[in-house]
This record gives sequence, structure tokens and C-alpha cells, in this order.
Amino acid sequence: MDIMKKSLEMHEMYGGKMEIKAKVPVEDTYDLSLAYSPGVAAPCLEIEKNPSLVYDYTMKGNLVAIVTDGTAVLGLGDIGPEAALPVMEGKALLLKRFGNVDAVPICLNTKNVDEIVQTVKMIAPTFGGINLEDISAPRCFEIEDRLRAECGIPVFHDDQHGTAIVVGAALINAIKVVGKQVKDMKVVINGAGAAGIAILRLLVQMGYTNVLMCDTKGIIYKGRPDGMNPIKEGVAQLTNPEKVSGSLSDALKGADVFIGVSVANLLTEEHIKSMNADPIVFAMANPNPEITYENAQAWGVRIIGTGRSDYPNQINNMLAFPGIFRGALDVRATDINEDMKIAAVYAIASLVSDEELAEDFIVPKSMDERVAGVVAKAVGSAAIDTGVSALFQQPVNVNTI
Amino acid sequence: MDIMKKSLEMHEMYGGKMEIKAKVPVEDTYDLSLAYSPGVAAPCLEIEKNPSLVYDYTMKGNLVAIVTDGTAVLGLGDIGPEAALPVMEGKALLLKRFGNVDAVPICLNTKNVDEIVQTVKMIAPTFGGINLEDISAPRCFEIEDRLRAECGIPVFHDDQHGTAIVVGAALINAIKVVGKQVKDMKVVINGAGAAGIAILRLLVQMGYTNVLMCDTKGIIYKGRPDGMNPIKEGVAQLTNPEKVSGSLSDALKGADVFIGVSVANLLTEEHIKSMNADPIVFAMANPNPEITYENAQAWGVRIIGTGRSDYPNQINNMLAFPGIFRGALDVRATDINEDMKIAAVYAIASLVSDEELAEDFIVPKSMDERVAGVVAKAVGSAAIDTGVSALFQQPVNVNTI
Repeated sequence: MDIMKKSLEMHEMYGGKMEIKAKVPVEDTYDLSLAYSPGVAAPCLEIEKNPSLVYDYTMKGNLVAIVTDGTAVLGLGDIGPEAALPVMEGKALLLKRFGNVDAVPICLNTKNVDEIVQTVKMIAPTFGGINLEDISAPRCFEIEDRLRAECGIPVFHDDQHGTAIVVGAALINAIKVVGKQVKDMKVVINGAGAAGIAILRLLVQMGYTNVLMCDTKGIIYKGRPDGMNPIKEGVAQLTNPEKVSGSLSDALKGADVFIGVSVANLLTEEHIKSMNADPIVFAMANPNPEITYENAQAWGVRIIGTGRSDYPNQINNMLAFPGIFRGALDVRATDINEDMKIAAVYAIASLVSDEELAEDFIVPKSMDERVAGVVAKAVGSAAIDTGVSALFQQPVNVNTI
Repeated sequence: MDIMKKSLEMHEMYGGKMEIKAKVPVEDTYDLSLAYSPGVAAPCLEIEKNPSLVYDYTMKGNLVAIVTDGTAVLGLGDIGPEAALPVMEGKALLLKRFGNVDAVPICLNTKNVDEIVQTVKMIAPTFGGINLEDISAPRCFEIEDRLRAECGIPVFHDDQHGTAIVVGAALINAIKVVGKQVKDMKVVINGAGAAGIAILRLLVQMGYTNVLMCDTKGIIYKGRPDGMNPIKEGVAQLTNPEKVSGSLSDALKGADVFIGVSVANLLTEEHIKSMNADPIVFAMANPNPEITYENAQAWGVRIIGTGRSDYPNQINNMLAFPGIFRGALDVRATDINEDMKIAAVYAIASLVSDEELAEDFIVPKSMDERVAGVVAKAVGSAAIDTGVSALFQQPVNVNTI
């Protein structure tokens, strides 16, 4: 595949994708005396007296660590920290390009939950935020929960929330197109990894009550004898109080929405035909979706979204994370909480106007330059409103920041 | 002091001194497909198959972590990790400006030796080298030793070796000026911190045999009843076999060289008068040296060096660390060993020509653009010659790299 060859060539030519650059000149000894000895003692002493000034005098306030252990990289699985580095640099590239956020990959030489949590806590003083990336489920849930509680800076697991937020936004616009209501929707999520669980939790917050989640053992329900873990028990309790059981095929009967974060080509014509009228399918397995775009169209899917850039409706977490970190950093948020995530959902959805809205246009394009700014403002406002902005303790008009 | 005020203003205006930038364009979805999904899978898979390719396809090969716990920052002491960040950014600035090395500050939220070692080992996969900085003695020795043994990438404690290397270079040229020989020299080092210990060890490697080290309790000798630790016992055994005891004043009698890494204004006229003819004094306490430049001249010091940029002979580790990391990274060194450090010493000394050499010109200027390149070549050659270059297993002409 030509893209693969070209990508290798590009990575080798540049020696990776990111570099560290100076913002200040060093042309003479006077410049040196300000940036280094003896002048640098001045900001050091000010920060020692008042630690919050580290945000004014250093790069911390705009610097995010992209932390991975390399256990769940793209669709490639557990390839290790070194092999994960190109993806983390790619993340840093997008954070800079779309959010003007400085981001550094930190690939960890451990898969142990305690060691990961400990390491991130140790390095936190340098950073304004932590983006967890490509850490396998269910370990990722505990790692994020503990770091959010213990770090004092915003911690965001992009594979969970970035994906969930864009799915949430896409669904707002999709049900507008088909003219359905949230309260009437039956949603099936296939895949109980990081993204699937986060999508389920977000949809519940958005008011979806009838959501079934399937994994390789079928529908997840409370007390299912095999393939369960505490996280899955939790989601089953949250959305499947009647303990519906059965296969994916059983789940899909009468469903309005299928959300796939699983494997390629598992949806059949029978699956689609068994769904409710005007079926919505977000088939996000990478690189090959749960159903091809062509089959989806042939079998009567009304709205199809995938993770791919070469078809309409690309459901890509690029639409979320640059703006979310931009917004969190702008108001010096101490957390990225549920209200901030929901704010991002509605902000992304709002970028498709009523005139543009159509079966093949339910989310903004990946390269849409407006997205990160609009998301950042919404996220920053939500941080202030929920009292997690260390900079703005009172509501302000975020548009004037 | 105006420099302090200007420095604060500069740090606030820029929001710190360093940023993370893209080396590759992201102007359209094709660029995205190479730098991110799906193309990024290509370098990931190559690195998974052959981990050393991480040096070809990512930023690792040019990326150094500047690691501190904030316990011995400048002359300010234990000011903590956040307050240390402006200094670490300053280091990153100099590494980039003079060595074209990408460097990221990592300020650690712990002072515990085991935790520091563990954290650095955990984050090592991202980095091509580790620069330890401003970690107090004697903990810094154990931390460096353990990381050198366990990390697999070069680890260099700049406060020790950077300073020692520049002192070694300055001393080569100083004794040339006064026409003395290494074997005849009596050297007194005052201050048994990280820099003092490293200077002593380096001078021994350079052939100096008569070196006394003093701390606040006087001359260090084997078995001294107070103020000792295993490191000091080691140096006493190395250079003071006759167990000379006494005060700094006793040590200085007949000394050819005084090297101060201690506190301001402790040398008296009597001290200087008691030294051998043509005394050489490197008074490097910051910001105020062990003897003022004016007093040194008035009292008959032949050659005076300080850490200050506003007097001749600035003994500044800036002359060492950018070129050392550049050289180590260029040949993918797995260590920065003693031969590489000695190579840096002679490279720095060589940059003062016989024509230029004078009492007030024994080391190159801090802003001399030639230094890092010349040091890098010497260090790279020494790495290859000592078998620690992962890239060049056979001697090569480093000038052609």
C-alpha cells in the first residue's frame, strides 16, 4: 500500500515528526543572562514563593504529556512503548496543529497499573495535562480514575472519551436527520473495550436509556457467567436492568443505532434488515469497518459513519482532543469532567449547520479549522461553570479570553 | 537588579522558553494519512519487528530528558520541582541553540533515590539520553551510577561532569600559560558537592596526583571522624593516601591551584600569599565567587577564572554539555564514559590557539559557535573507539558523519 511506503519514507526523512524549539532568542550574552544564569533565578524564586506562578513563567501551562504503555496501539495491539512512539508523535502533531498545545510523548517501559500511575504522578510537575493513549482495557479505567484523583492536573484518556465525544456529536446530528427522539432510541454497542465503555457511559449521560452492549460472548448482562469484569458488571447494571441476554443478532432486532468498536466485516444483511426503520450505523473498526460503506448502502442503512477519511462521516477523535486540551489549559482546569465532555459533544455537533446537515454530513471534516476553537470555548466555559478552573473562579464570558 | 526584572518580564511574555513544534506539514488529509492514520502504522510495525529502528522513524534519537528533583537548583538550593522548571527550560534552550539537541524538562515530584531511578527507567523508551540536573549530593552519585547501569541510553549528570570537563580544559591551558607540569601540581578543591567530587575524579584521570579536597570541616582524609560519607571516603583514599589533615588554610600552603565550588568571599590575602608562585584560582561559587576578580588581581593571582560572564575566563558548563550530547546522539552512544568526557576536555582546551592563549583567555567564550561541533566530534570518536556506539561498531572518520 502506497501510503505505508510513503509514510515510512516521510518518518525516516524527518527523523520523527516533532522537535523542541526555542521561543526566545539567544544571540548574545545578554540574552543568555535573561534566559539562563543569572536571570533565570528570578522566575525560580517567584515560583518557589507562589507555586501557581509556574503557569506564568514556564512552558507547563501549555504542555501535555501523551502517556502510553504501548498495549493497545491503533488496531495493532500490544506492540510495546518504542513501536508506539510514532503514534504518540502523531498525537502531538495534531494537538499542536489544531489546538496549539505543546505535547510530548512519554512511552512507558511498564504495563503495571501501579507503576504507570506512580510514574505519571512523579513527572506531573512539568505538565499542564496528561493525555492517556492506547492503554488496553480494563486497566485504562483504573489508571485514569486514579490519576484524575491524585494528579491535580487534567487527565484524559483519549481512546475512551475522544471517541465517545465524537460519536455523541454524530448521533445528535444523525437522529436529527432521521427525525427520531433520544428517548425512543434503542442503541447497540459492539465492543467492550475502552472506547465502547466510554461511549456507553456518555450516551447514558446524554439521556439514552435503552443501550445494549455486546462483546464476543454476546449481550452483556448483570451476572453473566463468562467474560465479565467489574467494569462490564457496572455497565450492565447501568443500561440493561432487565438482564436481556443473547447474541449480537438478538440485540440488533429493532435497534435504531449500531455502534461498532470491534472488528471488520461482522454485520450481515440480515442484521441490518432486522433493525428498526432508518438504521444508523457507526462502524468504526480500523482500518476496515464492521460493514463496508458499499454494503451499508446496498442493504438500506440510512446513515453510515466510519473511522475512515475516504468515506463521508468520518468519526474521528481528532475533532475532540485538540479543542478539549486547548479549553482545559486556557482556563487552567484541574480536571476534565463530565460536563466539559458533554460541552464538547454539543460544540462539535453545532458545527454542522441545519443547511449542511444530511445523511452524508453529520460531523465536521477532520481538517475543519473551526472545530478546535469552538470546542475549546465550550470546554473552558464548562470548566468555569463547574468550578474546576483554577484561573476563573467566577463565570466569565469565555469569548473574551 | 535589572537583569532579574527583565528576566521575569521575558519569561512571562513568552510563557516559558521552549515549545514543541511540528517538523512535518499537515495541510490536507493526505498529509494526515501519512503522519497519522493509517500511514503511521508502517513505522510502528517496522519498529515492533526491529526496535532499533525507533531511532530512524521517531524523535527519540535526538531527544534528551532533563531530569531534576529540584533539590540543588543553581545556588538556590532545594526549591522543588516546579520552581526548578525555568532552569531546566534554560538547559533545553542551550542544548537546542548550541547542540541542535531536542530536550524536554522532566521535573520530578519526589526526592527519593529509588523513585527517581524507577521513574527515569520507566520513561526511558521515549528518549535518546538523560541529562540529570540540579540533584543534590551525595544522592546524585547513586542515581547516576544506577541509571548508567540500567537505562541503556547515555546518562550524564551535568552538574558533575559538565563543570569538571570545563575545569579540566581550563586547567590544561592555565598550566600552559604559567609553564608548569601536571606531575608537579598541587591542587586544592574546596567544596565536596557534586561538582567538586567530579572535578577531583576527572583530575585524577588526567594525571594529577596531589589533590586535596576540603569541605566545611577542612581537608578530607580517610577515617576523618566527622562529616564523612562513603563518597568522601572514596575520594580521600584516591588522592590523599598520606591522610593529610587540617584546615583549608593548611591545604593551600604551597598549592599551585585553587578550585572553588563552595561559597562567596572565603579566600583571604593570606591564603593567596601562602600558595606557590603563579597561583591559579578558579573561583566558581555563583553568583559571587570565592574571591572577587579585583581582589584576586590585587593579591597576585596569576590566572583567575570564575563562573561569571562579566569577567574573563568564564568557566561555564555550557561549553561542555551541548557538544557532549550532540556527539553521543550522533553515534547513538549507549553511555557517556570517561574516555568521552576526557575527549571533551581536550577538545574544549584545543579551541584556544597558542596565539590567543593568555592569562585572561584560557577557555573559549560561551557564545563561541565552534565549541559544540568540535566537542561533539571528539566525543563521538571516543564513543566509537571505546565500543559504546550502537551505530558505528568499527572506528570511522567521524568528520564524515
